[in-house]
Amino acid sequence: MPTKVKEFNDYRAKMNDKILASDNKVIKRIFNLDTNAFKEGHLPVKTKELLGLVASMVLRCDDCVQYHLEAAMKNGVSKEEMMETMSIANLIGGTIVIPHLRRAVEYWEALEEEKSLTE
Amino acid sequence: MPTKVKEFNDYRAKMNDKILASDNKVIKRIFNLDTNAFKEGHLPVKTKELLGLVASMVLRCDDCVQYHLEAAMKNGVSKEEMMETMSIANLIGGTIVIPHLRRAVEYWEALEEEKSLTE
Amino acid sequence: MPTKVKEFNDYRAKMNDKILASDNKVIKRIFNLDTNAFKEGHLPVKTKELLGLVASMVLRCDDCVQYHLEAAMKNGVSKEEMMETMSIANLIGGTIVIPHLRRAVEYWEALEEEKSLTE
Amino acid sequence: MPTKVKEFNDYRAKMNDKILASDNKVIKRIFNLDTNAFKEGHLPVKTKELLGLVASMVLRCDDCVQYHLEAAMKNGVSKEEMMETMSIANLIGGTIVIPHLRRAVEYWEALEEEKSLTE
Amino acid sequence: MPTKVKEFNDYRAKMNDKILASDNKVIKRIFNLDTNAFKEGHLPVKTKELLGLVASMVLRCDDCVQYHLEAAMKNGVSKEEMMETMSIANLIGGTIVIPHLRRAVEYWEALEEEKSLTE
Amino acid sequence: MPTKVKEFNDYRAKMNDKILASDNKVIKRIFNLDTNAFKEGHLPVKTKELLGLVASMVLRCDDCVQYHLEAAMKNGVSKEEMMETMSIANLIGGTIVIPHLRRAVEYWEALEEEKSLTE
Repeated sequence: MPTKVKEFNDYRAKMNDKILASDNKVIKRIFNLDTNAFKEGHLPVKTKELLGLVASMVLRCDDCVQYHLEAAMKNGVSKEEMMETMSIANLIGGTIVIPHLRRAVEYWEALEEEKSLTE
Repeated sequence: MPTKVKEFNDYRAKMNDKILASDNKVIKRIFNLDTNAFKEGHLPVKTKELLGLVASMVLRCDDCVQYHLEAAMKNGVSKEEMMETMSIANLIGGTIVIPHLRRAVEYWEALEEEKSLTE
Repeated sequence: MPTKVKEFNDYRAKMNDKILASDNKVIKRIFNLDTNAFKEGHLPVKTKELLGLVASMVLRCDDCVQYHLEAAMKNGVSKEEMMETMSIANLIGGTIVIPHLRRAVEYWEALEEEKSLTE
Repeated sequence: MPTKVKEFNDYRAKMNDKILASDNKVIKRIFNLDTNAFKEGHLPVKTKELLGLVASMVLRCDDCVQYHLEAAMKNGVSKEEMMETMSIANLIGGTIVIPHLRRAVEYWEALEEEKSLTE
Repeated sequence: MPTKVKEFNDYRAKMNDKILASDNKVIKRIFNLDTNAFKEGHLPVKTKELLGLVASMVLRCDDCVQYHLEAAMKNGVSKEEMMETMSIANLIGGTIVIPHLRRAVEYWEALEEEKSLTE
Repeated sequence: MPTKVKEFNDYRAKMNDKILASDNKVIKRIFNLDTNAFKEGHLPVKTKELLGLVASMVLRCDDCVQYHLEAAMKNGVSKEEMMETMSIANLIGGTIVIPHLRRAVEYWEALEEEKSLTE
């Protein structure tokens, strides 16, 4: 059975392919920018991923949160750092962010499990 | 088979426990405030629950709506009062609120059924 | 010199007239609904005004807040009740609501001053 | 097995009936306005449906997007025009709109399939 | 005395220059995309400007609205078409959009005046 | 003549005093949390201020942005780091964030000027 993480990433990849195949130049460039913006720059990748995470949380975009959680974990973010980022999101964005925090913590656990399997 | 209401509350409780176990002081205090803010004060609990409901609706947070629907029912809010609250949410927040109204009305029915079973 | 309250209401009235003069049926009906939704129904006017206020706050619409503050005061809402409504808005909507709370408290004072002049 | 499109429309119809049965005048009128606003006027129906689509996308309302995708297709909107509308939504609304674009493209395919079956 | 329209455009141009001078590649490309996305494509420029306008309205961005109002007028959008676009924004986005409609109608008048002066 | 920075901070302080004087416990605690959440923890203060900045930008709260810009500068954030944070906000939040970026860059300049005067 595919894991939660694999299922999310497969759907994401499949639909991104279809979107890019439609050959809309503006959309293609936005997808491209998305890759560039999170590369090492004046700020390290790890900090940028935390920025992406907090912005996704306050805008309450579960899929964006899941994407940045995986990237954050890959770039060495600890659970404590993740939760501290979440606490700022909850304070600034209010309690309406909490349901997204529940799902984020659940996904973080799925990522940890996934990681333990592949090690 | 667990009912819709039980499923929601169980997931909520399970994830809240995990979040609080992570021991982040800011998040813990926000959870705490959530309990305090809806206690009897200058305004009665019932009015506060309606405030929580309308705010959750215009911010389009289904889980928050479900939580406040249950608390509203427990505090004696009638279906007519609930729908009047919803009408204000729909007017101020626009037709993008309607899909959330559909789910809210469905959840209200689940709460009514739950209530009739336990009486 | 026109007071802050008078200035706000005059601009509002002037522009509403222009909007309604443009004779768009959908807009006219939305304006109409706005009057109907806050009339006495299953819920009293005072409660409805608090609902309008909290919804306006979490959606961070200063003009809407000012409008509902005036209506709330006219319908007997006390400062304590207003602040309690605001506390729920701040909790649910987060600290981004605070700048709007500052302006709301300032406007409430202007309304109190206006009221003391006309009594 | 009911298709994705049929399932969505059936749920929508069933809950709309329940909402309208609750006999709240303000909600009834908002539902009514919804029909009127998208009728031929100074702007053609096709343009209005694109306006409804882009507004639903930037406000990130999946159900609203699905509804306007179906209406758009029925009014002769091509896939290229739909994607161009989406590109404007993505630029103005940012990358948080992308998860909704994935689901929209998936639903558009379901609509195309549905259409090919009924022709 | 500079007109309202000139003042807005001058500030916009001045700050855009400063932003672009900071030489951040991602921001530069987003500014670039903004120009491309509204060019003639499968959809005519006029339709695209209405899409930009309705999206700006429901997201309640006054500056974006002003920018698209000017572009819409230059591309032959009539006042009736503009108001019909606004009516869809008001229905979908709710009454919190109304204060932005007031300012939009005021700016449209400033644009008409500006236009009459330069003809 | 008071500078832009002083004017902003004075108004903020004056209104915060009035809000806290109203003695609403929930609001008082939210204000308190705001101080705690940005203290050194698992993440350094500088990173936390960038998180506060990006969250404020995507939620389009000018006052919050100004507050975090000042704190960011005080904690050693360079203009390049600030602009990189902004680029992520613009990508995730879309072009509706741009008007807030204009005002943020203007305020950053005011902060730099203020700083040069006091050195």
